This record gives sequence, C-alpha cells and structure tokens, in this order.
Amino acid sequence: VAQAEALVRATIGDHIVSDDNRVLEQVVVAELAARGMQVATAESCTGGLLTSRLTDVPGSSAVLQAGWVTYANEAKTRELGVPSSLLAAHGAVSEPVAVAMARGALERSGAHHALALTGIAGPGGGSEHKPVGTVFVALASRGLGTLVLPLLLPGSRDRFKLMATQAALDLLRRRLLGLGLRAGCHEA
Amino acid sequence: VAQAEALVRATIGDHIVSDDNRVLEQVVVAELAARGMQVATAESCTGGLLTSRLTDVPGSSAVLQAGWVTYANEAKTRELGVPSSLLAAHGAVSEPVAVAMARGALERSGAHHALALTGIAGPGGGSEHKPVGTVFVALASRGLGTLVLPLLLPGSRDRFKLMATQAALDLLRRRLLGLGLRAGCHEA
Repeated sequence: VAQAEALVRATIGDHIVSDDNRVLEQVVVAELAARGMQVATAESCTGGLLTSRLTDVPGSSAVLQAGWVTYANEAKTRELGVPSSLLAAHGAVSEPVAVAMARGALERSGAHHALALTGIAGPGGGSEHKPVGTVFVALASRGLGTLVLPLLLPGSRDRFKLMATQAALDLLRRRLLGLGLRAGCHEA
Repeated sequence: VAQAEALVRATIGDHIVSDDNRVLEQVVVAELAARGMQVATAESCTGGLLTSRLTDVPGSSAVLQAGWVTYANEAKTRELGVPSSLLAAHGAVSEPVAVAMARGALERSGAHHALALTGIAGPGGGSEHKPVGTVFVALASRGLGTLVLPLLLPGSRDRFKLMATQAALDLLRRRLLGLGLRAGCHEA
C-alpha cells in the first residue's frame, strides 16, 4: 500500500487536495485561517456559488471579508471600480475585466486575497469567439500581483458553476501553499 | 382527481409554489422578469447561497442587479451603510440590522426589491437569547416598505442555509403575487 501511495503521489502530486477527506473549500479556509489571512470574492457567472462554498465551512466568518455578485456591468463598475471603457473594449467576459474585478475587490475589501470570476454559464450568451463555458478566473493578492486563468468549461449551467468555482478555489490553494500553477495560468 | 386537487388547493392554497415542477427560484425569476423588475441581495449567514440559487436559473442576469455577501460587520457598514451604532446596539443578528441591510441594498443597487438575511448558521456563535438557527429575513421594495420575518431554523449548517434562502425567496414570491404573509412576518 505504501508503495502504491508513493506512486500515486509521484504521479498526481499537488493535485491531491487532502488526504483526510476534506474538500477544497475546507482546505482553503483552513490554510487562510492558519495564516491569519482574509479573502474577498467578486463573482459574475458563478453568481455567489464560490462565496457560498466558502461559507459552507464552519468558522469561515474569520476568513471571508466580503463578497460581491456583480452580474450587471453597472454593478461591476459601481461596486468594484471596473472602468466602463474596459468593459466596452473587451467585453464583460474577458481577461482584463477578471483582473480588474479581482483588484477592485482586493482594494475595496482590504483582504489579503481576492478571487474573481467572469464567464458565460449558458445556455444563452455564447458567441463564436467566446462560446458558452468560457470563463476567466483571477486571483489578486496583496504584495504578490495578480494571476489569471482562462478556461473553457462546456456542459450544463450547474456543472459550469461547480467547475469554475473549483478552479478558483484551487488557484488560491496553490498560491497559499506555494505550489505550481495550472497550465494556462499566468501573471496579469 | 379534480376533486382531490380542489381539496388540496383549498387546504394548502398559496403554499403551492408551482404546478409544473418549477422550483421556487425559477418561479421568482419568472415573476420578476414578467414585471420587468430587478432584485438585489444582501447576505450574511447564507453566504451567497440565495444569490447562487437565483443565478441557477437561465436568464437570471435580466433580474439580478447585484448581490453582497457581508459577513464581517465592517462590510455591512461599508457596503450597505448599516450604521455601526445599530450593530453595536442590537448585534449583527437582529431585526433592525436585517432591515438596514435590505434598505441599503435597495438604495445602493437601484433594484425594485432587495432581500437580506442575517442569522447564526452554527455550529458556533449561538447564545441563550439568539440560539444557533436564529435568522431574520427582510424584504425592502421600492414604494412598498419593508417586511421582516424572524425565524428559528435549527439543524445542520447546510440545512439552515437552504431553509433560510427558501424563506427569503418565498417572501419575495408572496409580495410579487400579492399573497398573504407567513405567520410572524410584519412591516418594519
């Protein structure tokens, strides 16, 4: 068994979230709490699911500073300071807007980290260049800069919301634990 | 069958959410859309689940103006304008704070309706006078005043979040459809 475990660990490595049945949101809340850090969230396409998953964990009140669900463009501008010109130039579902949402949430909340998501959950709203399932995940961290991860997560609306929030939580887990980044993830 | 249906309808009446398998969030989104109305949300104890449920419905982008998850007291004050003095006098889990959160979200968003929730999801945080499961649901509506509903929803954290969001959605459904209010619901 020990040999098999070593082989599995060598193969999938830091994709292992926990070895004690804790799910991703529990690991993220625990790692934030251990560092005395707080997180803020800025969600568009996932509509509050990321924040809800974090707050499923007892004690999450110590690490969640604030969350915004900014579905409407005007809410992105009013609440998070995303420039209207940026929305007009790149569209709400774009890398620059994801980055601006994360930075806006970080600055406004005073948290140590801010996660932002903008995408197209479907079934409507897709286009040739931005099909349903397109999503940009951004993580801004005080003193560490901003990471952004573009993904394509086709499938049902429920599955899209789940997988997009999973990607966001994993991005924060990797930064907290100093692990390598997923393919496609880069500094903004 | 028709007689049985009539009997059931006469007995449980407006507790029937739909007769076509639509769940509560689908009915609420459809009724808002039919009226060209928008809703905003301000969540504490439910941590984004109310907003996530609304955004599970395709097309909800037309009716959701914005959502706030204000777990921390300072986020309630900064984002929704809940006076610090109100928080100090009544505590974050109180009827006046639920009302202030709803009115703050209504005013800030420009939506027609704003739902707010503040409570104690547990397992920690309960006290003699405010046990785990205590929650206040408030609904502020443009030109219609504010309703507030105090509830006690003991049980697991997951169940608490689900039942509290159910109560909030039903409060809005009843206002939209002009139905009677639940026992304990009153104007603030």
